[in-house]
Amino acid sequence: MSVTVLRLGHRFARDARISTHLALTARAFGADRIVYDVEDSSVKSSVDAICESWGGGFSVEFVKSWRKYISGFDGVRVHLTMYGLPTQDVVPKIDLSRDVLVVVGGAKVPSDVYQMVDFNVAVGSQPHSEVAALAVFLDRLFAGAELGKEFDGRLRIVPQERGKRVLE
Amino acid sequence: MSVTVLRLGHRFARDARISTHLALTARAFGADRIVYDVEDSSVKSSVDAICESWGGGFSVEFVKSWRKYISGFDGVRVHLTMYGLPTQDVVPKIDLSRDVLVVVGGAKVPSDVYQMVDFNVAVGSQPHSEVAALAVFLDRLFAGAELGKEFDGRLRIVPQERGKRVLE
Repeated sequence: MSVTVLRLGHRFARDARISTHLALTARAFGADRIVYDVEDSSVKSSVDAICESWGGGFSVEFVKSWRKYISGFDGVRVHLTMYGLPTQDVVPKIDLSRDVLVVVGGAKVPSDVYQMVDFNVAVGSQPHSEVAALAVFLDRLFAGAELGKEFDGRLRIVPQERGKRVLE
Repeated sequence: MSVTVLRLGHRFARDARISTHLALTARAFGADRIVYDVEDSSVKSSVDAICESWGGGFSVEFVKSWRKYISGFDGVRVHLTMYGLPTQDVVPKIDLSRDVLVVVGGAKVPSDVYQMVDFNVAVGSQPHSEVAALAVFLDRLFAGAELGKEFDGRLRIVPQERGKRVLE
């Protein structure tokens, strides 16, 4: 299984930090790439710099037509939305032998997205954050195994009770 | 057990959205309040508006001295940091009969924070997002039960396979 995150509706400047957090969260929680429907080189360069130092083979990509991207995706298509069915009910139904596309909306998600995917999934039915939703969804999808993933980067943290230890 | 999130190092304007996401994530994942060390009324009013519509008795508070707040906290003090010990190892050690304080740093966390808490906890040892870290930590702390929490708000979502259904 490979996991791709598709971030819709990114707005320049206003969303730069949230979209960067989303990309880093995707990477840290085991996704293979994030795809944006607009080309924001500042987000890409921030994320690429982290990947360069910390490893893991994660990529930031852009597509012109997100509708074609979703409809052409060969695998299980999931849309994270607070209006969907509970994560805990949906995750057991996802075929882990297939690739997974996780669509994450921005401010306003066009209504046809709900029809184009296999599952509309809610991480709680309360308003919160697409970053939180993505993290918890991936944590459930990988059943926690992603937290043990080896990234083989130039920098590596050695977990400590107090303070910081980074190997280079 | 009540759960309080303490957000350190909030910067006006630059951090407004991340701090708002952090507050909404705290609320949606079962925390009782978020405490900031600077008073940003725009963050408070955004979060208060959500609480007013969606319920749940969550509060946004400010303290002048976060050091006094941490040292005076009667309960288990946890600091989320990518340099800490793995969440999956620490959560089973937390006494759930006591109140929990979750300290979430911003850009730069003063080094004495690491000494003032009972546990420095990492949600993965990779750089990602304090919003993601908080969500997954609380999801693990409550063992998923927080996603079933009733908020009894004026607005309530009825989970759907497709589309949106909100009761008022």
